[in-house]
Amino acid sequence: MVFALANSEFDIIKKFLATPNLNFLRDGVELGIGDDAAIIKPPPDQNLVFSLDVLASGVHFPADAKPDVIARRALGVNLSDLAAMAADPLCFTLGLTIPEIKEDWIEQFTDGLSTLAREFNCPLVGGDLSSGQLQIAIQVHGLVPDGMATLRSGAQIGDSILVTGTLGDAAVALLGLGYESHLGSDFKLHGLADPQPLFERYFFPSPRVEFALGCRGLANAAIDISDGFVSDLSHVLRESRLGAEIEEAALPFSATAEACLSESMLTQACLNGGDDYELCLMVSQDSKDEVFEVAKNCDLSLCEVGIIEEIEGVRLKTRDGKMVAVNGDGYKHF
Amino acid sequence: MVFALANSEFDIIKKFLATPNLNFLRDGVELGIGDDAAIIKPPPDQNLVFSLDVLASGVHFPADAKPDVIARRALGVNLSDLAAMAADPLCFTLGLTIPEIKEDWIEQFTDGLSTLAREFNCPLVGGDLSSGQLQIAIQVHGLVPDGMATLRSGAQIGDSILVTGTLGDAAVALLGLGYESHLGSDFKLHGLADPQPLFERYFFPSPRVEFALGCRGLANAAIDISDGFVSDLSHVLRESRLGAEIEEAALPFSATAEACLSESMLTQACLNGGDDYELCLMVSQDSKDEVFEVAKNCDLSLCEVGIIEEIEGVRLKTRDGKMVAVNGDGYKHF
Repeated sequence: MVFALANSEFDIIKKFLATPNLNFLRDGVELGIGDDAAIIKPPPDQNLVFSLDVLASGVHFPADAKPDVIARRALGVNLSDLAAMAADPLCFTLGLTIPEIKEDWIEQFTDGLSTLAREFNCPLVGGDLSSGQLQIAIQVHGLVPDGMATLRSGAQIGDSILVTGTLGDAAVALLGLGYESHLGSDFKLHGLADPQPLFERYFFPSPRVEFALGCRGLANAAIDISDGFVSDLSHVLRESRLGAEIEEAALPFSATAEACLSESMLTQACLNGGDDYELCLMVSQDSKDEVFEVAKNCDLSLCEVGIIEEIEGVRLKTRDGKMVAVNGDGYKHF
Repeated sequence: MVFALANSEFDIIKKFLATPNLNFLRDGVELGIGDDAAIIKPPPDQNLVFSLDVLASGVHFPADAKPDVIARRALGVNLSDLAAMAADPLCFTLGLTIPEIKEDWIEQFTDGLSTLAREFNCPLVGGDLSSGQLQIAIQVHGLVPDGMATLRSGAQIGDSILVTGTLGDAAVALLGLGYESHLGSDFKLHGLADPQPLFERYFFPSPRVEFALGCRGLANAAIDISDGFVSDLSHVLRESRLGAEIEEAALPFSATAEACLSESMLTQACLNGGDDYELCLMVSQDSKDEVFEVAKNCDLSLCEVGIIEEIEGVRLKTRDGKMVAVNGDGYKHF
């Protein structure tokens, strides 16, 4: 059901969700909020790409997180999945369960959603609002021309492994916010540097949509980095039945992360920190320059961190020249 | 993300979700479980219709409900929304949050899902599995030819209001199962009749897909009855800016419901019981015979319960000839 419009729900939906800020008009969307279902009409030469993510309070975000932060994370991580497929955002649905109706909370939540929805021209078209423990289910829908989606399975031997932005920032932010890290008790802040500049990197992931659309047809495979770089790269390698060699010295990190962590913990944050929502692209040598050009035009940093190889598994070439096997012990949901 | 394939999640997804029983091939589905997103390609002359519903433990189903019951309800209620739009099921996504991995539970849950998925040729194509309080988010996707979706807004003055099956059975079942009803403390079992035959009506709603597809182009408006007949009819009336007169004597109920409730409570169950997952169609006099013929061919009972009128609101003509206003105090989610 597209928002059960009964009683108090009806009022909340009308006031906060079925608004021009969220349920706005967009080409391709035939029917939004207000019926049993939403309707879209993809153009004849396009595929519809969609991804559903659920964020639960106390699991995917701290129980006391601000509503606009939760909203922007929830929609942002989904848009990041679309970017990984080279799909152009079209619209999204929202399944929101909240313990009670607090108008202030809902207003801030929907304001946060609206910021990203407007930025990516991706209106809310339906969903479900009900009571229950706080959880946010969001499905985003995007369009990609026939055969142009970038899959995990397309990596080729000799492809460069490219990573946008910097890795490990969100893991440092979580430490700075006082939360325990899944990376263990050794993973802690080092020195006196202030991790505060990185909080936004955790709160407000930036889906790399513009870059991804610019790279259509240039990457052999792609994935977004959510669980952790090695863990996510391993999905690509598994689907492509290949392996990879990564250079420790090539891993991209921010100056703040560097100042906050010891050298070995910095590498750990880059490899397995998670919540980065950067893109990892597998690109042939022929296309590499063009992909770097796209990144430059998007004002986005891009690093070559390794190469796809025939032998399965992920090998890390350390700063002192040793080769060690690393595994994808990224974020474990259980 | 289409099932974060990390660690134990990966094994669970591979063993129970990315299986031929759920993630089966189907025309129109280009890519199912295993990448950042799923891909479908609707035929050029078709619209994509989709509906997201979230079921939370302790709110939408009893916390101790059996996993196959939860699964079939979760997918069934969504398919019922597609039926209301006259859409043909195509595929679905699942956002499952569970407190812990219990393989027995997951096996029964996925068996239940698979039963309906197979029956309606509607494979699972992606989603999200993580820890959290038990909640099931399901989005179903269906196809309908351009302009053929049945909306809530299309009712016309003089349309007959038709209802499939019987109403109130699920409300009686819930009483029989020992749960308190939202209809208040006066709503209770009456006499010695056994409500047990109705338990299946609550546990396993039957989406009226075949009937709905047969009625394409014949109904002016439609809705599925989930919150309660009057509540849901009121959505149609609101969207169509019209009113309705309902005949108490014409309301369809089962013999078991009749035996379990007093006469006034039986009417209450039919009007506001909810969880019926029957269809309510607004049909012109010219098309009525044809719709009854479709129901007959589907071996589905169909009743004419009232008529669409110009004056807004819902009026009930009681068995003793009085006219009373009734409102849509169906199920309140808060």
